[in-house]
Amino acid sequence: MGPHPAVAAIRLAVRRVLHDILNDLPAPGDGHPATVGHPGRTAERPPSPLVPSPASSSAPPAPPLVLVACSGGADSMALASALAFEAPKLGLRAGGITVDHGLQPGSDLRAEEVALRMRGLGLDPVEAVAVDVGRDGGPEAAARDARYAALDAALERHGAAAILLGHTRDDQAETVLLGLARGSGIRSLSGMAAVSGAGGRYRRPFLHLDRQTARKACMVQSLPVWDDPHNTDPAYTRSRLRHEGLPALEKALGKGVVEALARTAQLSRDDADALDAWASQAEASVRDAAGRLECAKLYALPPAVRRRILRRAAIEAGAPAGSLFARHIEEVDRLITGWRGQGAINLPGRVVAQRQGGRLVIRQG
Amino acid sequence: MGPHPAVAAIRLAVRRVLHDILNDLPAPGDGHPATVGHPGRTAERPPSPLVPSPASSSAPPAPPLVLVACSGGADSMALASALAFEAPKLGLRAGGITVDHGLQPGSDLRAEEVALRMRGLGLDPVEAVAVDVGRDGGPEAAARDARYAALDAALERHGAAAILLGHTRDDQAETVLLGLARGSGIRSLSGMAAVSGAGGRYRRPFLHLDRQTARKACMVQSLPVWDDPHNTDPAYTRSRLRHEGLPALEKALGKGVVEALARTAQLSRDDADALDAWASQAEASVRDAAGRLECAKLYALPPAVRRRILRRAAIEAGAPAGSLFARHIEEVDRLITGWRGQGAINLPGRVVAQRQGGRLVIRQG
Repeated sequence: MGPHPAVAAIRLAVRRVLHDILNDLPAPGDGHPATVGHPGRTAERPPSPLVPSPASSSAPPAPPLVLVACSGGADSMALASALAFEAPKLGLRAGGITVDHGLQPGSDLRAEEVALRMRGLGLDPVEAVAVDVGRDGGPEAAARDARYAALDAALERHGAAAILLGHTRDDQAETVLLGLARGSGIRSLSGMAAVSGAGGRYRRPFLHLDRQTARKACMVQSLPVWDDPHNTDPAYTRSRLRHEGLPALEKALGKGVVEALARTAQLSRDDADALDAWASQAEASVRDAAGRLECAKLYALPPAVRRRILRRAAIEAGAPAGSLFARHIEEVDRLITGWRGQGAINLPGRVVAQRQGGRLVIRQG
Repeated sequence: MGPHPAVAAIRLAVRRVLHDILNDLPAPGDGHPATVGHPGRTAERPPSPLVPSPASSSAPPAPPLVLVACSGGADSMALASALAFEAPKLGLRAGGITVDHGLQPGSDLRAEEVALRMRGLGLDPVEAVAVDVGRDGGPEAAARDARYAALDAALERHGAAAILLGHTRDDQAETVLLGLARGSGIRSLSGMAAVSGAGGRYRRPFLHLDRQTARKACMVQSLPVWDDPHNTDPAYTRSRLRHEGLPALEKALGKGVVEALARTAQLSRDDADALDAWASQAEASVRDAAGRLECAKLYALPPAVRRRILRRAAIEAGAPAGSLFARHIEEVDRLITGWRGQGAINLPGRVVAQRQGGRLVIRQG
């Protein structure tokens, strides 16, 4: 008798990603088993080469290590259990990291408990890492920044090939809605990538799996899970979205909303990638010999491509990407498409855009 | 003293669109006043030539006619009032159409009442048109189909240059969420166009105006408005979205959600247009001399472009666009990107896609 369907699902998802990681490892024949390509989703993308950490000792090369980032919640506990099960079968080592954000009393004990649970699953090495959460960009962004910095450091320290993250399709749907609320275009609708970070170090095997499956997999494997109180705290936007916004949207639009949002993420990401590639190719062709943007050539481009070039030029001139909104770019675009002698446009970061004799000049003032 | 700000806002929105309509009229010097370009939003798009109806009589040419589609609700009553005010100033005639969907007892009397109100505003010609609503695609789609067929006929019958529609930014936000629920990509996120229909016959002056402004403009002009009971009937998806889904989303994400959704519509539309143009250009380059799709050349394209070509090829082969989902195209795409000898893929409309010796063959089976 095989495992419970939920357990089979989480293991399959992890197995596919481990295959990808092995395929993306740089040098063949260095001790880890050869694998063949598989028809999974991530195989459609060109492999992103993993940059190996410089060997820090002269010990004989150990098998590649894959880490799981585990909060102790159902999603990442399910992920840890599947990694512990699948990694050895592929000749990989499996370890785990849990981050203590220090935001609640006793969070250090909690982190130690999660580390113990990971060791209980057979993961090795396992580490609980304490971080200092700053205040930049609000509590959620600050916690996330601190967490990823700690994970990056752990990956380097252990010379790991990759870190698995437990984000599910439900998390993805929430991320798309958060991006939608920014109204800044399809890049912000593209959610989280299955592969991200320098050298493709972060992998999200559960991006197409629902939260319910992860929860079920923990239950049938009798894995204790811990529910982060932040996840139900209405002070957090994501929590409000999860417990009020998304359920109301499902009530109005039907049960398929989460899946539709996750699919929107994937499609938007591909579309945004293609348009970015177009813009970066077109950019060279709209500059004159002195490198200045020619208005007539910009005018001939599709608006979607032209605005991407303008955005890129503004950032290059020093405008901070995070403060540059669609309305700024629209105003600059009107220097091209609705020219009636208007003056210079002020952009964030003291960047100024103006039309001068058929050229568009964007520079810091 | 000028008009109330809400009235000024609706009039400005209509004036801009009337300028666009005049600029888009085909022959200059045929009796209507010359206008100059203006820097409004729609002026950024290349003018879509309006196809004039063939003259049906030998009477001297009358000034161009612009119609408003008016349900008697606040949005379209505000639109009717602004059209009645602005059109004469630009040498245009202004008329109105109201459609009786026959879905409630007394709807015929209601339509006559709306027609009377439009006449009271000085619109001429004014017509109440009764339609038979079928059942295809659900009650909302069937009503919409019948309504647009009636409006198309009215435009032809009166030889009108355009029909104004009262959709607001709030309607646009709802449309984006409905598209999001389909999960079929950025085209379905692009909502309603400011200019649509054959020859650009439909114009939506209020797409950047909120519902509250239209309502206020009716109030301060003492215009009686009628609230369609369908708009609050929870049996309708759009109504559930308006009264439950969107408010819950605003509560979770903040008040700017409607504006963000409307901006997403505009950005998605431009992006989808650019990618469609790319796909249609790239399509010729990936076909061999016999017109068959070459897998190697398809493989080299960005996924976003390749999938659009595949979708287009499937539709050309006879697959009904409405039944062709992203997952279908993904499966066909794997014949290119994840080839491992898989068999033919069945698509809607008895269309079959298969790989044959480096070529992708899509045809009706």
